[in-house]
Amino acid sequence: MKSCGVVVEYNPFHNGHLYHLEQSKKHAEADCMIAIMSGNFLQRGEPAIIDKWHRTEAALHGGADLVIELPFLYAVQHSDFFSQGAVQTLAEMGVDSICFGSENGRIESFLEAFDHMNKHQEEFNATVRMYLNEGYAYPEASRLGYEAISFPSGSIDLTQPNNILGYSYVKQLLTYAPEVEPLTVLRKNNHYHDEEISGQISSATSIRKELLQAEAMTEKSELCLPPQTVKVLQHYQIHQGRWHNWEDYFHLLQYKIMTMEESTLRCFHGVDEGLEYRLKRMIKASATFHEFLSSLKTKRYTWTRLQRTLAHILVGTDKEEARILLRETPPPYARVLGLSETGKRYLRSIKKEADIPIITQPQQFTHDMLDLEARAAAAYYSVLSPKQRVNKLKREYEAPIIL
Amino acid sequence: MKSCGVVVEYNPFHNGHLYHLEQSKKHAEADCMIAIMSGNFLQRGEPAIIDKWHRTEAALHGGADLVIELPFLYAVQHSDFFSQGAVQTLAEMGVDSICFGSENGRIESFLEAFDHMNKHQEEFNATVRMYLNEGYAYPEASRLGYEAISFPSGSIDLTQPNNILGYSYVKQLLTYAPEVEPLTVLRKNNHYHDEEISGQISSATSIRKELLQAEAMTEKSELCLPPQTVKVLQHYQIHQGRWHNWEDYFHLLQYKIMTMEESTLRCFHGVDEGLEYRLKRMIKASATFHEFLSSLKTKRYTWTRLQRTLAHILVGTDKEEARILLRETPPPYARVLGLSETGKRYLRSIKKEADIPIITQPQQFTHDMLDLEARAAAAYYSVLSPKQRVNKLKREYEAPIIL
Repeated sequence: MKSCGVVVEYNPFHNGHLYHLEQSKKHAEADCMIAIMSGNFLQRGEPAIIDKWHRTEAALHGGADLVIELPFLYAVQHSDFFSQGAVQTLAEMGVDSICFGSENGRIESFLEAFDHMNKHQEEFNATVRMYLNEGYAYPEASRLGYEAISFPSGSIDLTQPNNILGYSYVKQLLTYAPEVEPLTVLRKNNHYHDEEISGQISSATSIRKELLQAEAMTEKSELCLPPQTVKVLQHYQIHQGRWHNWEDYFHLLQYKIMTMEESTLRCFHGVDEGLEYRLKRMIKASATFHEFLSSLKTKRYTWTRLQRTLAHILVGTDKEEARILLRETPPPYARVLGLSETGKRYLRSIKKEADIPIITQPQQFTHDMLDLEARAAAAYYSVLSPKQRVNKLKREYEAPIIL
Repeated sequence: MKSCGVVVEYNPFHNGHLYHLEQSKKHAEADCMIAIMSGNFLQRGEPAIIDKWHRTEAALHGGADLVIELPFLYAVQHSDFFSQGAVQTLAEMGVDSICFGSENGRIESFLEAFDHMNKHQEEFNATVRMYLNEGYAYPEASRLGYEAISFPSGSIDLTQPNNILGYSYVKQLLTYAPEVEPLTVLRKNNHYHDEEISGQISSATSIRKELLQAEAMTEKSELCLPPQTVKVLQHYQIHQGRWHNWEDYFHLLQYKIMTMEESTLRCFHGVDEGLEYRLKRMIKASATFHEFLSSLKTKRYTWTRLQRTLAHILVGTDKEEARILLRETPPPYARVLGLSETGKRYLRSIKKEADIPIITQPQQFTHDMLDLEARAAAAYYSVLSPKQRVNKLKREYEAPIIL
């Protein structure tokens, strides 16, 4: 059975994702599509609009055969760790290829960029270091680094943030899993960070914005979403009483930071360079998450980096724990969130040969990474009503969704 | 100016408290009544029904001239530390006497008990130790200890829990502040832990129960409360949108415990003997605070002890921090919550001679104990709306209430 992996967040699963999944399947000539998906928190350090189970359900209906959870510790990270966790797990799952969406649809341009980077790594590093020392945030420093080593015309342009994730998948593949083929398909409607919803393919950002503002399904959103996504979104809102966003968690975050000493705050993953003092100083006067983040932001600390750090504080990711867990390569397990009949057959075919445990019964498995996952789930569901919370916390240890 | 101290919680200030304050003033022939009061959390490990500022206002209207905050770390403790913090602070404030309510109104009976205990301390200790080793909780073990050294007929009966607090005030006074006279007045309507409200003098427990159940002022409650207490209770409910009780905090507590590793939980004051594992195990399946506490309770862990420990987890009292702070005798400062004209004059008369700082401008004073107080306030107010929370957190550093 030929398999193809995709790295996704599906927050929520929309028409663009559906298109990417279908095109990837075709392009890879795959029988089985394996999606590795961020769980309840996302790469940008945000809680997902609906939980991982509902997003899994939408993904299965949209054509994914296996949905694997990208562990919280890899999901809420900059692109290097994010790609490392995702690509290595997919490789351990035995995928023949990994296919991502890009703005030019040409894999050669990514391979050329990789070659070029390999040749100019030192110059790049030196430039980035220089700008970091000048107080620039990492994304800006690395953009200037890419600029300094001017890429050849056939290569993708790494000064464009949209290319960075795809590039880091390719880099991971070529470095750690050369047996897996990197593939890319042309992305329909490029601007995936667009704030405004429009047409049938819109960015997840714009769809979330529309949904959260209206606090209800709208005509515009419905146009961009497969019917099954509309269904799970509505189901979640009716049964859990909400769609999630950072503001819902602000009282917990404020409570946690205000009842902690600086020395304890410093133990969380991402709280470096004296950020603990800034956190304590700014939290007192903030009435909303947006206010808090705005007051924290500096040239050095980007919005996304701060959001990720706050997610790690919310969940309670210990710095030392993170360091030890991230040292493990490949990731210690692959946890199945959902599967189709094809996915089931695929799992049976690889389960014996896989080098890492593939978890379908989490209650029978223990690992510090899975403990952290349970803490992330606990944090995520802590804004629900008590009864729902208890149910959701039980769900965390139960079997995958079967389509 | 002759002064008399009282140790109080005023949760809320009711007719029984008013009577005690008036009788104490008369009995002590005092010009100035100084109340040391638990802040936002109480000795039994519960959040106060309304905050310390509103309770202070009611106390000032009821005849207190100075209201001093018993620091959180002393307030949420068993009777030994509670009395130590309260009595020593009052002694540092230069009170001539301390007057408490009792069931027989005879101070001699407390003095006799103290003498008797002094003579039988070893036998008492040995008995208590024995029962503790058998797995009894401390209150039960000490009751059996008192039983073993049978008190003479003129002495109070320490097997009665109602006598324990008064006794520990006397013990503190005779041991640490022999210059201060211990006094007692007869308590009107003895049963101060009564659950049912009745008549004009009812227990604070029964009044809270009535108020929290009705979520409104009732005729029965109004009968037991001075008009000013009715006013502050109503004012608080209108402006802060609630009266506080443990259930309001359960989602925060559950969130905190579920996003912490056992090794971190173990660092909180009161989490001993492997309680961290029990906490983690029981919290998952609990939908309410009451459910959680019921599932935690054993012969060894009493309801009150567990409640106190949970309050320390909620607030984030570090074990090592508590150990260091509790070693300081007398307590490091006396923070004024409110004062009358008489109180103001009294303060002026003692301020220069007092051995500990008397704080009326907390923003100009730093101490780890005051930091912990701010954390307790942050935890207490974290159930309010964002705007109210921010205001209340500012209030924490402002000047006392002046009547």
